This record gives sequence, C-alpha cells and structure tokens, in this order.
Amino acid sequence: MDLNKYKAKIREVDNFPIPGVKFRDITPLLEDQKAFREIIDELTAFFKDEKVDKVVGIDARGFLLAAPVAYLLGAGQAIMRKKGKLPHQTIVEEFDLEYGRTKMEIHIDAIKKGERVIIIDDVLATGGTAGAAVRMVNQLGGEIVGLGFLLEIGGLGGRKQLRDYPIRSLITY
Amino acid sequence: MDLNKYKAKIREVDNFPIPGVKFRDITPLLEDQKAFREIIDELTAFFKDEKVDKVVGIDARGFLLAAPVAYLLGAGQAIMRKKGKLPHQTIVEEFDLEYGRTKMEIHIDAIKKGERVIIIDDVLATGGTAGAAVRMVNQLGGEIVGLGFLLEIGGLGGRKQLRDYPIRSLITY
Repeated sequence: MDLNKYKAKIREVDNFPIPGVKFRDITPLLEDQKAFREIIDELTAFFKDEKVDKVVGIDARGFLLAAPVAYLLGAGQAIMRKKGKLPHQTIVEEFDLEYGRTKMEIHIDAIKKGERVIIIDDVLATGGTAGAAVRMVNQLGGEIVGLGFLLEIGGLGGRKQLRDYPIRSLITY
Repeated sequence: MDLNKYKAKIREVDNFPIPGVKFRDITPLLEDQKAFREIIDELTAFFKDEKVDKVVGIDARGFLLAAPVAYLLGAGQAIMRKKGKLPHQTIVEEFDLEYGRTKMEIHIDAIKKGERVIIIDDVLATGGTAGAAVRMVNQLGGEIVGLGFLLEIGGLGGRKQLRDYPIRSLITY
C-alpha cells in the first residue's frame, strides 16, 4: 500500500531542534486512528513471513512503532536508548546526527545470540542512528532480519549505510 | 489475570538514576514474548468496552505500552513528552518527581475537545507524572476514561491523586 498519501499529516517545522534544521513532526499522523492503524499494519506486513524473536525500538519515537509491531509479530520488545537512561550493563555506540554527535546504548542481555531481530525507528535520514543500531545488534550476536521506518529522507546516504539488509520505509521524501 | 507472577522479570537496580533510588527495570519483562503479549492484552482488556478516541503515552517507556493498546483499541496515539522535545505549540505542566522537579508538555492539538482519552505509563508511584497528564488532558478538553500502568508502587499516594478515575495497574508493590 502506498502511504505517501499521509504526507499531508506530517507537520514540517523549520528551525527545530536547532536553526537550519527542518523537523518533520509525525504526531498528527499518529493521532489519526485510521492512519495509525495503517502504518502499523503495513510495517508488520513487511516482516510477517519471517520468524522474528525481538523488535528493537529506538528511543523515543521509534518505540511508538516498534511496540505494536512486536506485539503483532508475537516478538519480544527490546529498546535502544540515549546514553544514561538504561540502568544495567550496556554496550554503547557513538555516531553523528544531522546536528552534532550522540551516543546510544542497549543492555547487554537485550538480545541473545542467534535471535532474529528487526530494528524500527521513525526516520531514516543519514543512517547514523540505524547504523549504530545495526552494529550493536551484531555485537550482541543477533541476526538482523531487516529494518523498518515510517519516513525516509532520500539523498542523505541512509539506505546506502544499510545496504546489507531489507528495508521498508512507508513514506519517502 | 494476576500478572504479579512477572515480578521475577523486573530487575531491581539500586542507586539509579541517583543515589538512594531503587529503579525497577522493566526491560527483561518487555523482552519476553509471552509476557509482553499478556501485559498488552490485559491493559487493553480493561478499556475494551469503552469508546476510546486517543491513548496518551508518557515519554518514553509509556510509549511502549500505549502504542499497542492504542492499536488494539482502534484509537489514535497521542504523546506527552519531557519539555523541549515537541516542535509545535504546547501546554506545559511542572511537577515533582521522586528526584527533583520536572516539566512535561503536550501539543495543543493532540487532543480535541470531547475526545475520550486513556493515559498510559510504565509506573505509578507518587502520581506526579500521571497527575500532570490528567491536568493537561483536562485543559485540552479531553474526557478521561481511565489510566493504565504496568507497575504500581503503593504507599506513595499515587492512586489517591487519581481517585476520580478508573485505574488498572498490572503489577503491584
């Protein structure tokens, strides 16, 4: 299903979170009952013929998509968080964002060796965050089945960083 | 269903995020496929006979529970975030946490007047966060159907703050 029809429900906000950045606000889309159902169904459909043990959601908007997909696939929900939010022992990755460098981490026991994993976030842009997620899942011994995104901003190299894996992006710019 | 059996999957971490605080880490519970399904089913069941227009998830672990419940109830997903994360016009509430004061906010158009709303978060303790969420939903003209929590820490006054509303907490301490 082509979900680009929902671009009308994405609010573009200039100069957020810092001057010069155009922020795409997905909250109006998530707030729409029918749109929310369709995006979750469509993300889930892409992975439905795969055995999936864990869905990794990326802090924080990724959680909103990952959790229903995990539920519908009968998988467990794992989370990757901004540095400092997880209380147990973690592995950490540092990487570049559109604005500055940042660190994400995941608990060392969030994924078991050999588990089949999908990674879900709201936006694929430069691929910095998704690339870090891939490296962390690999480091924990997970087998990456694919990645899912609500939005993909083309031309920033994100898809190229992830070329080893199947990717589903629902709305593309 | 009594889900207190899942206490064994909640990891207690002393002195996190600050000295003197015992943090209850729900990640092992969410990572368990069967447990994750049961907690989502049980939260959803509590509200299933109600008409629900919006589910408000509270930043960030609340998103992991709110999003599947919103999906299953056929509702829209609204989010309440720590101050500074939302790009559009918001209303803000300041309140006390177990450690210090904080601010949460919600977009002014996240809930429309008369919409029937449930609020979901991971933990009910002092009720500071949940109370702020209730005030913001009321300020936007939403009608609160009830609140759902994965954990409730008794004896800290949380339930008393919310006494006007039906509450479902799955695991109680």
